Formats: sequence, structure tokens, C-alpha cells
Amino acid sequence: MGELRGFMFPRSSTGHSSLVPAPPWHYSGEMLTIEYRTEPERVSELLAPPLEPARDDPGAVAVIFAEWQSCSDTLEELVDPLRAQYRECFVVVRCTYCDETYSRCVYIWVDTDFAMVRGHHQGYPKKLGEIALTRPVTIGRAGPRLEPGGRFGASCSAYGRRLIEARFTITGPAQDAGFVNASPMLHHRYFPAIESDGSDSLHELVTMQGYDGAVADQFTGEAEIRLSDSPVEELTRLAPHEMIAGYWRRVATSWNGGTTLERGGRP
Amino acid sequence: MGELRGFMFPRSSTGHSSLVPAPPWHYSGEMLTIEYRTEPERVSELLAPPLEPARDDPGAVAVIFAEWQSCSDTLEELVDPLRAQYRECFVVVRCTYCDETYSRCVYIWVDTDFAMVRGHHQGYPKKLGEIALTRPVTIGRAGPRLEPGGRFGASCSAYGRRLIEARFTITGPAQDAGFVNASPMLHHRYFPAIESDGSDSLHELVTMQGYDGAVADQFTGEAEIRLSDSPVEELTRLAPHEMIAGYWRRVATSWNGGTTLERGGRP
Amino acid sequence: MGELRGFMFPRSSTGHSSLVPAPPWHYSGEMLTIEYRTEPERVSELLAPPLEPARDDPGAVAVIFAEWQSCSDTLEELVDPLRAQYRECFVVVRCTYCDETYSRCVYIWVDTDFAMVRGHHQGYPKKLGEIALTRPVTIGRAGPRLEPGGRFGASCSAYGRRLIEARFTITGPAQDAGFVNASPMLHHRYFPAIESDGSDSLHELVTMQGYDGAVADQFTGEAEIRLSDSPVEELTRLAPHEMIAGYWRRVATSWNGGTTLERGGRP
Amino acid sequence: MGELRGFMFPRSSTGHSSLVPAPPWHYSGEMLTIEYRTEPERVSELLAPPLEPARDDPGAVAVIFAEWQSCSDTLEELVDPLRAQYRECFVVVRCTYCDETYSRCVYIWVDTDFAMVRGHHQGYPKKLGEIALTRPVTIGRAGPRLEPGGRFGASCSAYGRRLIEARFTITGPAQDAGFVNASPMLHHRYFPAIESDGSDSLHELVTMQGYDGAVADQFTGEAEIRLSDSPVEELTRLAPHEMIAGYWRRVATSWNGGTTLERGGRP
Repeated sequence: MGELRGFMFPRSSTGHSSLVPAPPWHYSGEMLTIEYRTEPERVSELLAPPLEPARDDPGAVAVIFAEWQSCSDTLEELVDPLRAQYRECFVVVRCTYCDETYSRCVYIWVDTDFAMVRGHHQGYPKKLGEIALTRPVTIGRAGPRLEPGGRFGASCSAYGRRLIEARFTITGPAQDAGFVNASPMLHHRYFPAIESDGSDSLHELVTMQGYDGAVADQFTGEAEIRLSDSPVEELTRLAPHEMIAGYWRRVATSWNGGTTLERGGRP
Repeated sequence: MGELRGFMFPRSSTGHSSLVPAPPWHYSGEMLTIEYRTEPERVSELLAPPLEPARDDPGAVAVIFAEWQSCSDTLEELVDPLRAQYRECFVVVRCTYCDETYSRCVYIWVDTDFAMVRGHHQGYPKKLGEIALTRPVTIGRAGPRLEPGGRFGASCSAYGRRLIEARFTITGPAQDAGFVNASPMLHHRYFPAIESDGSDSLHELVTMQGYDGAVADQFTGEAEIRLSDSPVEELTRLAPHEMIAGYWRRVATSWNGGTTLERGGRP
Repeated sequence: MGELRGFMFPRSSTGHSSLVPAPPWHYSGEMLTIEYRTEPERVSELLAPPLEPARDDPGAVAVIFAEWQSCSDTLEELVDPLRAQYRECFVVVRCTYCDETYSRCVYIWVDTDFAMVRGHHQGYPKKLGEIALTRPVTIGRAGPRLEPGGRFGASCSAYGRRLIEARFTITGPAQDAGFVNASPMLHHRYFPAIESDGSDSLHELVTMQGYDGAVADQFTGEAEIRLSDSPVEELTRLAPHEMIAGYWRRVATSWNGGTTLERGGRP
Repeated sequence: MGELRGFMFPRSSTGHSSLVPAPPWHYSGEMLTIEYRTEPERVSELLAPPLEPARDDPGAVAVIFAEWQSCSDTLEELVDPLRAQYRECFVVVRCTYCDETYSRCVYIWVDTDFAMVRGHHQGYPKKLGEIALTRPVTIGRAGPRLEPGGRFGASCSAYGRRLIEARFTITGPAQDAGFVNASPMLHHRYFPAIESDGSDSLHELVTMQGYDGAVADQFTGEAEIRLSDSPVEELTRLAPHEMIAGYWRRVATSWNGGTTLERGGRP
């Protein structure tokens, strides 16, 4: 009989089996952000009190594709890259809470189990999907250069259906990657009670930010996006009415925990 | 601004995006159970108070491979079978709690996201894996018959590594599928606090059972099993010292919630 | 220096690495066949001389979903089921050659490499896809019974896009599985010259049939099918104008080679 | 009735369905090459007349991991990146033919169907596998820098078994990527007769080279490699006896056909 160890389940006497290693976690990757406006009501219907719509530009949406390497403090995942590499696609809106503006991920797909459950820990409502994002190259014809005219594509599929397709063409350098995904994240972490009676066992409002962030090679450009239907998705409710812009950049960050703002929700 | 609906995340105004539909859930499948004995200390090290080792045969382990169809009460998943079919492999031990014997799943792999997170709801510590289990046939040479001499194989891999391989040969009919996975399940549901400080936000001891269970075509036989190492698994700690038996059967069950026994754990 | 062995590439001194073991190959599985009529010109445009359209019902098409176990004469794949199990979806039309009617597979997707290249050997133009087909069950609620009212679904996706979706409801027993896929197969085996100048190094017209065939549990019923577009597919050219019927059955067969009818084609 | 078009099967009236678009094909990627020596007899047993072992260093082997983007002359695949990106792992030895030294790929795994069959066209004996290769980064902690001390890992798995694991640490800049994969390729293209009687319908000795090649960011370093067993592989016959070195670089090339040197083989 012993104590069980491990940051995440399954917990064991050694802790080696944990699906997610203990933080801090480090990330380096490439990210394509596409910003557009939808009907503000379609964003606000995804926000329940105490969250409120953002005051300015409440219909703004960002769809983001990212290709990552990530690792724990041991860095051991980096030399067993099946455990380090993953891709994700996520949809971000903004909201107001206690007079502050936050970014909030409303839908997200990822392609490994460790990234999926690690995201659940952070409040990201991750599902599995098949994601692809064009990579820039420096030699040859099989990829865009990081310069005006460079063209990128991206897609996200789940259960054998294309959910999101995007294209992006660089027009010039950029100072940031837009405003929708630029605030601290405000997420819910919820988990229904095993009684399955409509109540939640876990229902928290949390916020978080990375640290030691770095960006490089930032570009902006023209973007297109197409959202499609599925019996288990509702992306077309967030259909774009007006494109804002696209952004590509390299991103790095580390993460070592967030802050619980409120507890309790569905009784 | 609205109320958010959905049994599981992501929650939305309609609830259609929920990764897992609301229970009840119905299951029909085929299951291979292999029972053996390992060192009792290797089982007890996976049990923390208030759980205690089973009094009789405390080193008994069951490794189970299953191929399922499952659906919600609408049955709609059954005609979009990518959303209904999955395979899993899991390791079960027994324990004692309040003088009662329970079955407990200590490791488990599954191959879809809906089954993974649905299992998390039930307290199964599911990871993703690649699982295969021989299917019996009634015609042709490419499969065993459900009769003495019928030979089955099974495997479970994750991150490109074979974790478990098993073989089973039918010797005759059976009345059950052994004793290790035959009690109500006693699981923990835990989720670390976003502060990532070693405390848990969710830490529950739960129990559950299916209803409307049915079994058919039950057989017993001789079994072999091989457990292998991985940097993120510790299956070889549960190495078999003595085989008990193998069992194959068709199984059906429904599930509509469990019972929380205790709350609280790591502060 | 030695002789290289192996039925298929890669060939080696032992032959163990061959992607496909030497025939005979044995198959046992479940098959859903959906027959419909499209514009006859859409079928005939897929037939080049010396093939001609079938004289009767030249617009008939069958779309078939199958879930297989297969093995070589050693049967060893059956106990390592990742090497035995696969699913496929294929489109069959009929044609006339030397006054005889043949079945001909014009498009096909499969989900393992051994089945893909084994199919290339037989003249099937196989690509990879993600295929699913509802399985019948005998207990529980999570699957249809093999009786009137039993409902099945099926899908085929590739590159994250749904190409084919089908539904089938049993109305009663059947004596066969339709007529489109019921004749000997007439396939081309072609492979371009490495000069990549438009000529073929391999260009054969072949025919083949299985042996030791068996069928069981044959049913007919009502079927629906939906074919979708993709940048690298052209299934919507074969859009259904009139449904014929659907069929479900268990099938077993063995295969040990075919017959070359003609050699030569694109110079 | 029409002419059938398409570089590769399936051929159709439009040619749009061809699994592989017509050449030229363009490639840009990152490549890790690990060179070592095995017993020369293990290499020569993979060479049949008229091929002979290389005269100098006949036991030299290169294991190469690559992550590619590739496209046809339309470049359209680059904006639908599921159709452009793939990874591969391959084993190269050297041989002598007509007094010239050639490189020859004896085993190879790749993770998409288009790259698999495109490789078959070029004489690569491709199977499917799951391949991963650490990517260098320029910011953050989750990846090596392209400088001395940068550490990379790589793996290749198939059928749920790890076949190859490698590690590489940069020690300094390099002028090339070794000598084993540096000559023109000498491949066989073979395909058994459908009669499956041991004869081949296609049996060609071919050679090929890319054009418009470019390299960048070349580094050398220390390498380790581990080859493992599988029922359908024989990599441990090529076990390393002495490591030579490792190399990392960016590579670009284009390909537009090769040359048939000899025809005929197994009757």
C-alpha cells in the first residue's frame, strides 16, 4: 500500500504512467492566426454569466492553426519526438469579466492524447482532429518563403469530415498576431458528476498566461476561411461576415499553472 | 447571452458540440479477458487508503481487450459508425473498500476521443492506443470458429511501441469471464488544480455498474500474455507469475451514471 | 551475394520483409453492397477499348463496403490481428470484353498497406482511406439485428474529406448480393515507365476470381448513398439517378492468382 | 467510350483521380542521416547479380529520416497541406553496377499513400509506417538549435512496433551528408505476375537522380541507432558494428523521371 504519484491519471506508485508530465511545460512552434467578424450574437451565445461580450468588436473571432513541439522540464520528449510533436486548430473569441477583456477558446482540435488532456487541464475543450498547416521553406519549390507572396494553407478535420479550411498570403511584416487571441485566457474547467444528473463535480472559472514568451518572423496578410457542418459540430454558426486579416509567426512560451477565479456552477 | 448546454465540453448554446452525448449510453461488443497472478505487492502499490488489497488472491490481474459499438439513446451514432465503433485494452485489479470487494481499472487505452473522455467521466484513466483483437468468423479460413481450438490474438500499442500482446485458444464453454473484472468498479476521478501545485480540484472515489447487461457465446481457454516496457508506461511491474485462464464472450450493457462515495484527496 | 526472395517488395535474402506474403490468401468478412443507376455515359467514359459497356443496364453501379480478416496459408496473421484486419470501400461497374460480361473496380480505398499493395497486384486501383461499416449484433442496443428493420451506416473518407456516406435498412432475406459485382473481375494493371514520358512499363488486362467462396446471412433492403467532391476524386460524376437495392452478407473467399488476358497499352 | 487519362491509377476520363500527379515533383524538407558499418555480408546478401558490393567500405549503411513537403508543378498541394506533407525513414546501402558506384534503398517506410506509390514508381520498396523527427527551433526551449550541442531524436514504427530509434547531437558544420546516400540511386522496380507463379510482370533495373538540388544548414555530429525485430521485418540483420557519423541538413530537389537500365528478371 502506498501513496499514488503522478500529475495526471493514471497515477501509480512511481508516477511514470501519468498521461501528462508535471509542469512546467515548454512550447516552440509555428502559428497561423486568421481573424474575422461574425454576428456578435453568435459569440455572445457562447458566453454565460458572469462573462459578458467584449465591449468593442464583440463579433471578432480568431481561428488559429499551430504546429508544436512541447516538452517537460526534463526535455526528454524532444528526443522521442512522437511524444513532443502535435498540431492543433482552435477558435478564440473575446469576453469581459470583472471589467477586464479576456480571450477564450470555444472550440479546439488536437492530434495527440497528451496534448488533449493537458489542454483539458488548462480549460481548453479539446477534441481529436486531423490538422495540417503549410510550413515555410528556405530552399526549393515545395513551400512558401517568409516574404510577401508566400502562400499557406491549413485544414482541420474530425471523424472524416473537413471542418475548417483556410488560406493565407503574406503581404508584409507584422508587429503582432492580431487582437482576438492577445489577452489572458479565461476558461471554464468543468466535468459532470458521475451521477450524470446534470450537475457538475468540477466547475471552475480560471485564467492563465504563459511566461518566457518569444516571437519571431511575424507576418501579416490576406486570409480566407471556410467553416463546414458536421452532426457533432456547429462551426457554421460562427460563419465569417467580414475578414479582418491573417498572421503567421513563430511562437515560444512556457506554462506553469494558472489561477482559479471562481468555483461552482451547475449544481 | 445564454445558458450553456452540453453534457461534456465544449458547451454551447445548443449543446450539439459536446464531445460526449448525455447518458444513457448503450454498448454491444466482443471481449477477451486474460487472467493471471502477479506479485501481490505490485497490485497493492496501486492502491492507496482507503482502498485495501483484496483479501483472497490479491495478486490477480485481468487484461481485457474489447471491440465495441456504442451509442446514445438516439441511436444516431450507429448509422455514422466512425462515431460508434472503438477498441480498448485495459488492466483490472481487485481491491477492498468498506469490507466490499471491487474491481478497479488501473491502466487503459482506447482509440477514439469520445470513448476516451467518456471513460474519464467514469473514472477510467484512459490514454490513446492502437488496439486489435481477432474476430471469430462463421465461414472461410480467415478467423477462428467459436469452438475448441479457435485461436485469437490481441495487441495494444501506444506511441509506436507494443505494450501488450496476448494469445488465446478456446478449450470449451464457460459460465462467466473470470473473477477479476466481475465486481462493481471502484474508481478515482481526479483532476489537478490549474495552479498545478500538487493539489487536486477534483478528487472523488466513485462506484458504478452497468444495467441491462447481457452475455452470449461464452468460452474459456488457454492464454498467454506479454507485457513490454515504454518510457511512459510501467506494465512490466505487473509481469505475470502464473496464468489463470482466458475468456471470450459477447457482452452488452447500458450505463446511466454512478455513485460518488467520497470526495477530497490531495489538498 | 545471393538470390533475392519475397513475393512483393522489399525483396531480401530471406523474403521475410515482403510487404505481401505469397498467395494463397484467405478472406472472411462482412460486406454491404449498394446498387444504383447513373448516366450510362459516366460508366462508359471509364472504359477504354477493348472494353465496351455492358449491353444490359450499362449505367448500373455498385458501391461496396467491407470489413475483412485475411491471412496467408500460414494463418499467422490471425493471431497478430493488426496484420489481418482491414476495411475497404470500392466502386464497381460492369463491362463487356470478348462478348463476356465482367465486373470492374474503378475506385477503391483501403486502410492498411498490405491490403493496398496486395490489391495493386490484383489490379485494384487502391488508395488509402478511413472506412467504417456498422456491425450487426446479437445482444444489447448498440447495433442492428440481422432481421427486417436492422439499420446500417457506412462511410469512406480520405485526406480528411467524406467521400461516400451510405445507409441501409434490411427488408428481408436475399439469395444474392445483386448483379454488378457478380461477374469475374476485369482489371488493368498498369505502372508508368520510370522515364515518366507517358508510356507504361506494365500494362496488362487481367481477370481473376476467388475460389472456395462461401456466403452466409444474406439480406436485402433499402439503401441511400451520397457521393461528395474532393480535389482529387471525381465520384460526383457517378451520381445516382435511381437506387436499385442494398445487400448485406457475410462472405469468405480464397485467392491464388489470376490470368493475364492482354499485354501492352500506352507505348 | 474514351481514352483513360492519369499518370497513376486510378485512370479516368479526366485524370483527376490519379493517386499521384504527373511529374515533375518538387520537394523541400529536413533530413537526418545516420551512417554506420554492419557486416559486409549483410549488405551483399541484399544485392543480386548484376549488382555487386561496393568495393570500398562495402558494409556501410545509412539510415535516413526525412520530413517533407512535396508538390506537383501546379503547386496546388501546398495550400492543401494534407496532400503535401509526409515523413519517411529509409535504409540505404551502396553497390557496384557496370563499374560505377550507386546508392540503393533496401527498406523504407512512409506515412501517406501518395508518397508510397510515388516511391514505388521510383523503385523505392515503400511500406507505411509512423515516423517522427525532432525539428530544430529558433526560439523557446522545446527544440534544439542548429548549433553544436543541438540534440535530435527520430523513430520509425509499423504495425505498432518500434523498428528504428535514433539520436543525434550536432558537433559542428558539415560540407555534405556522408557518402552512402550520395551516389545516383540504383533500384529495381518489380511486380509479380497476376498468375502468382513466381514470375514477374515488371522487373526493371533503373537509375535516377533529382535536379535543381539545393542544400542548406548542414551539420555533422554524434549518432546512435537502435534497430529492432518484427515478424515482418529483418532490420536486426543490419545491426551496426561501428558508427560512422550523423548529419542533419535542409534539402530541396525536383524529380522528372529516371532511366531504365535493364529489363527482365524472374521469368
